[in-house]
Amino acid sequence: MAPGELILSELRQLVGLENVLIKPEDLISYSFDGTAAMQQLPGCVVFVTTTEQISALLKFANKTKTAVVTRGSGTGLSGGSLPSKDCIVMCTARMDKILEVDRANLTMLVEPGVTTLSIADTATAAGLFYPPDPGSMKISTIGGNVAENSGGLRGLKYGVTRNYVMGMEVVLPDGEVMWLGNKCVKDVAGYSLKDLFVGSEGTLGVITKVLLRLIPKPQAKKTMVATFSQMDQAAEAVSAIIAAQVIPCTLEFLDRMTIKCVEDFAKIGLPLDCEALLLMETDGHPAVVAEEAAQMEKCCRDCGCIEVRVAKDDAEANKLASARRSAFSALARISPTTILEDATVPRSELAKMIRFVEAIAKKYNLKVGTFGHMGDGNLHPTFLTDERNKEEMHRVEEAFKEIFDEAIRLGGTITGEHGVGLAKKSFLPKFLGDAQMRVLRDLRKSLDPHGILNPGKMFD
Amino acid sequence: MAPGELILSELRQLVGLENVLIKPEDLISYSFDGTAAMQQLPGCVVFVTTTEQISALLKFANKTKTAVVTRGSGTGLSGGSLPSKDCIVMCTARMDKILEVDRANLTMLVEPGVTTLSIADTATAAGLFYPPDPGSMKISTIGGNVAENSGGLRGLKYGVTRNYVMGMEVVLPDGEVMWLGNKCVKDVAGYSLKDLFVGSEGTLGVITKVLLRLIPKPQAKKTMVATFSQMDQAAEAVSAIIAAQVIPCTLEFLDRMTIKCVEDFAKIGLPLDCEALLLMETDGHPAVVAEEAAQMEKCCRDCGCIEVRVAKDDAEANKLASARRSAFSALARISPTTILEDATVPRSELAKMIRFVEAIAKKYNLKVGTFGHMGDGNLHPTFLTDERNKEEMHRVEEAFKEIFDEAIRLGGTITGEHGVGLAKKSFLPKFLGDAQMRVLRDLRKSLDPHGILNPGKMFD
Repeated sequence: MAPGELILSELRQLVGLENVLIKPEDLISYSFDGTAAMQQLPGCVVFVTTTEQISALLKFANKTKTAVVTRGSGTGLSGGSLPSKDCIVMCTARMDKILEVDRANLTMLVEPGVTTLSIADTATAAGLFYPPDPGSMKISTIGGNVAENSGGLRGLKYGVTRNYVMGMEVVLPDGEVMWLGNKCVKDVAGYSLKDLFVGSEGTLGVITKVLLRLIPKPQAKKTMVATFSQMDQAAEAVSAIIAAQVIPCTLEFLDRMTIKCVEDFAKIGLPLDCEALLLMETDGHPAVVAEEAAQMEKCCRDCGCIEVRVAKDDAEANKLASARRSAFSALARISPTTILEDATVPRSELAKMIRFVEAIAKKYNLKVGTFGHMGDGNLHPTFLTDERNKEEMHRVEEAFKEIFDEAIRLGGTITGEHGVGLAKKSFLPKFLGDAQMRVLRDLRKSLDPHGILNPGKMFD
Repeated sequence: MAPGELILSELRQLVGLENVLIKPEDLISYSFDGTAAMQQLPGCVVFVTTTEQISALLKFANKTKTAVVTRGSGTGLSGGSLPSKDCIVMCTARMDKILEVDRANLTMLVEPGVTTLSIADTATAAGLFYPPDPGSMKISTIGGNVAENSGGLRGLKYGVTRNYVMGMEVVLPDGEVMWLGNKCVKDVAGYSLKDLFVGSEGTLGVITKVLLRLIPKPQAKKTMVATFSQMDQAAEAVSAIIAAQVIPCTLEFLDRMTIKCVEDFAKIGLPLDCEALLLMETDGHPAVVAEEAAQMEKCCRDCGCIEVRVAKDDAEANKLASARRSAFSALARISPTTILEDATVPRSELAKMIRFVEAIAKKYNLKVGTFGHMGDGNLHPTFLTDERNKEEMHRVEEAFKEIFDEAIRLGGTITGEHGVGLAKKSFLPKFLGDAQMRVLRDLRKSLDPHGILNPGKMFD
C-alpha cells in the first residue's frame, strides 16, 4: 500500500516536515542504486537520525503493512536498496557518528551511516586497522556493508565484513530494539543472530549501531604488478603463490580489455601487449613483507611472466593499486551501460571460469572486461552494453545465465560479495535448491510476518 | 514419548541390530557428558554411519515425535549432549572419515565423528594448520565442535571454530538433506544458514559433513611463562601486550590455586610463591616471533613480574604449555566434583572479574581455582566441591548466579565457549532479554516444528 496522507502526516510528526521527501523531483535520486538498468520511484523518503525514530516508524509501518526499504548511500550492486513501488525509503545516511573507539578491546562503535572510509581512517588514526575495503568504500556506509556482507580487495588474507562485526543494535519489523553480540572475543550464548543479520540485505531488521573489531596495523606493505602474455600463466602464478604458503593481502587480476580501458583512463604506463595483469600486495612485518614479495616475484617469473614491476615508494604503490581501483570506472567510460557481475568459484577453478566468460562473450557477440579478486576466486565479468538496445540486453541476460550455471557447476556461487537483491533473485532457487529456499522463507517470515521489510528482494 | 517396540524394530532395521543399544548397562555410558552432576538414561543409543541413515532416522522420529539427541564423544561441558528422558541418542562418532584435503583451496572435508586432534594432525601432515584447539581436542569430535562453536587456547589470534567452517551438510528434523556453504572464500547468496547452525547445539539439524578452512602453518613458535606476585600485575601485562599491538597465539592465565594443583600433579617446577602465572606463545615468521617474544617479556618485566622463563626448545615449550593444558585435570584431583565455568568479559574487564570471583568464593566459603584465556577474556572459574554435599552445592549455585550477573554487568557473556545446553539454560533469558528469546524460539520452531531435536536444551 502506498503511504497515504495519514501515513505521511504520521511520518512528518515523527521526524519533522523537512525530513520527509515526497516531490517526484526529490524522489528521483532515491529511485536507483549502483545497479545498472534498474529504477523505481518510492512513495516517499524519510531521513531518520535515532533508533527511537526507526522503532516508531517500523511499528507504524508494521501496523499499516507499509513497505519499508532501508538505504544508506545507495552504492549497492544488486538492487538491494532499490525502492519497491510506493514504499517508504528510510535513509540512515545521516546517522553518521562514530560513537567510540576502544583501544583496550580493539573495537569501534558506529552508527550505520558512517562511511567505510571514515571507519578505516578513524582506525588508522588510533594506530589500528579496519581491513574490509569494498570498491565503493569512499561513500558506502557501514550499515549497507553489514547488510550486504561486503567484501573488497583484502578478502583472501583478512576476510570480509562479517569477520569484523562483533555486535549490532537492530530494530525488528515490529519495532523491537535488540543488541546482538558484545565486546567479547568469544560468546556462544544462543544462536548467532548477529551472523544471521550480516548479509540479510535489509530483510530481517534495520541495523542502528555496529560494533566493529579492529586489528593491529601492519607495519609495512609492498605493492607489485606482474604482466603475462597468457591468462593461464597468471592463474598458474596464483596457484604457485598459494602453494608457497603465501597469503597476500591483495591478489587482483585484470584482463586485456580492462588493462586497455584503465590505461586509456588513468595513464599509469601499463603494458598493452599482455593478456593478464596481476596486482599483488603483501603487508605485515617488514621481514615477512620482503620475503613474501620475493616469493611472489619468483612465482610469477617461474610461470613465465613478461615483467614484474615492484613499487619503489608509496606514490608508485598507490599508482599501481589505482589500476585495479579504477577498473570499474574505466570500463564504464566505454559504453552507456556497464553490467558488473560477481560470479565466484573456488580458487582452483578460476582459470576455467575466466576462459568460460571469454567464450560466452564471443558466443553472444558481447564486449566484456573481466577483473576481480583472483586470490579468492571472486570475478567481476563486466559487460559493456547499452540498456536501450533491447536485443543486446537480451543477449547479456542469456550470457549471465550461462555464466552463473557454470559457476555453480564448478562449485562456486552466484554472488561473492554483491548480494542477491533484485539482480540475482531469479538465480537463487537453482543455486540453493527448494529445501533451502523454504528454510530461508520460513526464517524471514518468523522475523517479518507481514513482509514489510524490503519486499520483493532476495527470495520474496 | 519413549521409543517403544515398534520404533526399536524400525531403528534396528535401519542400522542393524548390533548398532542399537537398549540394555541399561550399555546405556549408562551415554547417560552423561563432560558436565559435572548431570545424568539421564536415554531410551536407546543408535550408532549411525551414513547421511542416509540419519535422514531416515529423523524422518521417522519426526513422524512419531520421538526426541533425538545427537552425540559425538560426549566431551561437552554444558550438558548439551545429555539425553532427555527416553530419547534416542544418535551417536555419530563412527562417522570418522577424512574425505578430502584440498591443498589448492586450503580446505578439508570430514565426517562429523573425526576427532579435532586427527584434523589438526592431518592438516599438519599436509603442511597446513587447523588452529581451533579446545581443551578436549584429543577426543572431541568436529561435529560437536561445530555444534558448540568450540573455542580453545588460540582464540585471540586465530578465532574459534566458526571462523574455520566454510560449509557443512546438515539433515533437518524432517529428514531433508542440504549443503550450506562451499569452497568459495566469499559467498553472499542468501542468509548465512551455515552460521546459524554453527553453535546451535544440535537443536536445528544434524551435521553430517564439515568443510573446514585451513591456513598456512606458522614457521616458528616461542613459548614462555611469567609469574607475578600480584594478579593485577598480570592483568596489566596483558593490557600492555595488546597496547603494544602484539596479538599472541596464546595468552593464558593460572591463579595460585591452579598453579599449586598443577605443580602437585605435573611437577613442572612452577614457582609456588606467586599469585598469577601467564603462559604466552607467539607463532609465525621467525623474525616476528623473536620480536613479539621480546616485547612480551619486556611488558611482563615492566609490570613487575617475578620471573620470565623462555622455553629453550620444543621439549621445554611442551612442558610449560602442559601447565595450562593440565589445569582442569589437576584441579579435578582435589575434590570429587569439579564445576568448570566459562564466564567471559571484554578483555579490559578481566582483572575486575578475577577479583570478583575470588571475593565470591570467600563470601560463599568455597574452594575455587581460576584459569583461562586471558587474551580473550574467557575465564574458567572452577569450583572444587562434592555433589553429594547438597548444602555446599547450593552455595556453588548461588556463587555462579552472582558471577554470571557480574559478567553481564561488565559487558560480558554467560558462556564464552562451552555453550548453553542444560547448564546455562536458566541464565539465558536474563542475558538475552525477552525479545531475543522470542526470536530464538521462533527460529527453532520454524526449523523443528515438532521439537524433536535436543528438546529441553538451550531455551526450550
